[in-house]
Amino acid sequence: MNATPAYDTLSSTWKRMHHLGHLQSIAGWDQAANMPPKGNEARAAAMAEMASLLHRMGTDPALREQLQRAEQEPLDDMQRANLREMGRQWRAATALPESLVQRRQLATSRCEHAWRRQRQANDWAGFLPNLREVLGLAREEATLLADQTGLSRYDALIERYEPGMRCAQIDRVFGDVRQWLPGLIRQVMERQAREDVIAPVGPFPVAAQKALCEQVMRLLGFDFDAGRLDVSTHPFCGGVPEDVRMTTRFREEDFLGSLMGTVHETGHGRYEQNLPRHWLGQPVADARSMALHESQSLSFEMQLGSHPGFVNRIAPLVAQAFGEQPAFEPRNLHRLMTRVKPGLIRVDADEVTYPAHILLRYEIERELIEGRIEAEDVPALWDSGMLELLGVDTRGNYKDGPMQDVHWPEALFGYFPCYSLGAMYAAQWFAAMRRAMPDLDARIGGGDLASVFDWLRDNIWRQASRWTTDELVLRASGETLNPAHFKAHLQARYL
Amino acid sequence: MNATPAYDTLSSTWKRMHHLGHLQSIAGWDQAANMPPKGNEARAAAMAEMASLLHRMGTDPALREQLQRAEQEPLDDMQRANLREMGRQWRAATALPESLVQRRQLATSRCEHAWRRQRQANDWAGFLPNLREVLGLAREEATLLADQTGLSRYDALIERYEPGMRCAQIDRVFGDVRQWLPGLIRQVMERQAREDVIAPVGPFPVAAQKALCEQVMRLLGFDFDAGRLDVSTHPFCGGVPEDVRMTTRFREEDFLGSLMGTVHETGHGRYEQNLPRHWLGQPVADARSMALHESQSLSFEMQLGSHPGFVNRIAPLVAQAFGEQPAFEPRNLHRLMTRVKPGLIRVDADEVTYPAHILLRYEIERELIEGRIEAEDVPALWDSGMLELLGVDTRGNYKDGPMQDVHWPEALFGYFPCYSLGAMYAAQWFAAMRRAMPDLDARIGGGDLASVFDWLRDNIWRQASRWTTDELVLRASGETLNPAHFKAHLQARYL
Repeated sequence: MNATPAYDTLSSTWKRMHHLGHLQSIAGWDQAANMPPKGNEARAAAMAEMASLLHRMGTDPALREQLQRAEQEPLDDMQRANLREMGRQWRAATALPESLVQRRQLATSRCEHAWRRQRQANDWAGFLPNLREVLGLAREEATLLADQTGLSRYDALIERYEPGMRCAQIDRVFGDVRQWLPGLIRQVMERQAREDVIAPVGPFPVAAQKALCEQVMRLLGFDFDAGRLDVSTHPFCGGVPEDVRMTTRFREEDFLGSLMGTVHETGHGRYEQNLPRHWLGQPVADARSMALHESQSLSFEMQLGSHPGFVNRIAPLVAQAFGEQPAFEPRNLHRLMTRVKPGLIRVDADEVTYPAHILLRYEIERELIEGRIEAEDVPALWDSGMLELLGVDTRGNYKDGPMQDVHWPEALFGYFPCYSLGAMYAAQWFAAMRRAMPDLDARIGGGDLASVFDWLRDNIWRQASRWTTDELVLRASGETLNPAHFKAHLQARYL
Repeated sequence: MNATPAYDTLSSTWKRMHHLGHLQSIAGWDQAANMPPKGNEARAAAMAEMASLLHRMGTDPALREQLQRAEQEPLDDMQRANLREMGRQWRAATALPESLVQRRQLATSRCEHAWRRQRQANDWAGFLPNLREVLGLAREEATLLADQTGLSRYDALIERYEPGMRCAQIDRVFGDVRQWLPGLIRQVMERQAREDVIAPVGPFPVAAQKALCEQVMRLLGFDFDAGRLDVSTHPFCGGVPEDVRMTTRFREEDFLGSLMGTVHETGHGRYEQNLPRHWLGQPVADARSMALHESQSLSFEMQLGSHPGFVNRIAPLVAQAFGEQPAFEPRNLHRLMTRVKPGLIRVDADEVTYPAHILLRYEIERELIEGRIEAEDVPALWDSGMLELLGVDTRGNYKDGPMQDVHWPEALFGYFPCYSLGAMYAAQWFAAMRRAMPDLDARIGGGDLASVFDWLRDNIWRQASRWTTDELVLRASGETLNPAHFKAHLQARYL
């Protein structure tokens, strides 16, 4: 006889939602990578219908009692962790009425679709009313989530991406970064000004770039029988764990951007591809959090991808792809990949100036959500923030300013901090790896990437959502979030 | 106050199914055009879940009473036609239990996915158990549909694709074709044996072929803002009316196959793109039937695409794409496009031998469904049929024999006759056009394709499912299906 009827019912409900969510994920990827413009209205309506259906399933009143009854059933550890995650998802979902979920889906689809053209045209005036609508809905959502959880409104949004993380902790961590980052940037730039760097000579044909990216993805263990690489305006890693859809974008005059962007997304991709197969479809098999997800992409892009040993490994592939050039000599290539230079675009930023982009977005979106500023206040704050943090002038350039990211059009407020938290976790993983394998750098230099992948797979990927974030981090690295590793990493690599 | 509450409820139910069906269509296209192999199991499960959900929605017991009540409501003509189509879909759906729908979806996904490799490997033994499973489910389905409708089992399957069409009529029409076709093929081949034809010299680079196909699609009025052209093993036209996903396949040694295949699919594509926009999502806005759909692709490919006037128009584009060649001279190109030669592959067949491929498939699948033969009997029947009808030897070649089409792996029994019925309707449309526009051939020769498109749009595309097939055909051409036009077309073009 079955001793866990309530748990089993919950489990099959989540499996059904997983199946339907699969179609939603593929449609979302297609929307960004393939869809022609006139398809958008019907796609937005279709995805809104599905979002609403999934919301209804995830907020079915029967779940409350099933969750309570399942608590009393004889569950093993994994099942109990799964039940904990079900409860978390259920509480988050029930805080929001279906009508709001549907309105948000429609508004973000519309805003994101228009943004793709408006960004090209530097059309802030056209973008503003759409952004205002999306912001209005995000505030509505934040208020409802805050009422339910007792958190502040912005904390309530962070909780969706990074459970357990609070503004207060981010303020502490980011406040510390604000202290030492501008000085470090100056120091690094002074030092690098004395170094000779040979610039690569383009153009770099897109077909060769794509082949190189796929070659490097293979080197990084991406399974092409369970995923693809395509092109979209804003690179992302979508799809489903069984079929990971990564995107990148190519520019003929620069190959490093798409190459390192691809290395970044490959970190996301491998996390997804290596979630515990047997548990897929259950919340316990979901990636732990967004900062943890970013810690994987940044482990790949920054810790590993910009490691001198790894650069040695890929330099011949670069020369093979585009023909021999003095710029492709490994030491020069490594210098190219670690140039520190304040710039306008977050996704093109080096790892030293990157946190400045996040500090700015964090400060702006926190104020937007708490209602202390409005959408029309963003450009002025952007201009002054960029000037103060990175010394660059952004006035009138919305395209490469507040319109550069897909996050706000998609109402992903609360997500940005995860990037820098992820950079910090990534540094913490590699510090832990070096404690466990003192010869790690020699291993990477000798082409042994398996040591890194094995550690990440055992400690992060396969753990999925079995533990809370703090527990997972503690088990993996012997301590909870410790941003000192990130500072130490930057100092070691750049000073 | 609202005088049509039941109708309105039905209408919004169908709209919801349309939205969810959109995701299913895009996922299906993606499965054929993009999906990596390890994604298939999860995709099959996801699509089965959706098929089952759509089936539940379409068989909701509440619909019966709503359909009855709506009959009494004051509806206009379009609404009444819409209600008729809702009833038809509902009756078809309620004949099948959800478990069968789900098993069929799983079995066909599995069979179709394996078939993609098995076909390459000529692996009939590997294919057979999957085909047997799919056939078993198709028979189960046919039996249930037959019980409900009082039709024979195979008629009940035809009814899904070609409402109102019966075996008896097909036997009559195809029986007539069997009489004159072999003689006509001989006559045409003798005649063509005396003609000089210059063969084009390849290879024809795939990128140039794709650009040429897209150019010709534009010439044929395909709206690339509402659709795409991609590559799949078996070309098809999928997606949704607002976002039509056409596929083709390229071979470097032959450009005419993909070019004319693309012209064919463009006919399907334009039908979909021009269904009545305002009614999309309601059954009355669906394409009328599969034979009508094929009548559009064959109007494009055969009636228009192989018309000497149209060939004049595209000959310079071909020369532009691949460089000048004697073979690209318009008269020679037209001869190439109208070569009659018995061959193994249906989709590569010329329009004269094509019906022979359909007769064979029709005769085999009718017997399979009626249970008079089994899956393992197919190869022997195939071999003898191909020998008798086209004089070609197919023994041991399953790849280019009974494994060549996606239809049986996908359980689309009852579909094949629609191709030849479509060819007959297409000839009937052009006969009607010539009665209305006696200078039609001169118009096409002078580059005026709008006359053809306008006629098709007004008489077929925009009519969607407003009338039954017989009514639509009568209104468009002044008579119901009259296969004499097809025979006359072949005689006029080839003798």
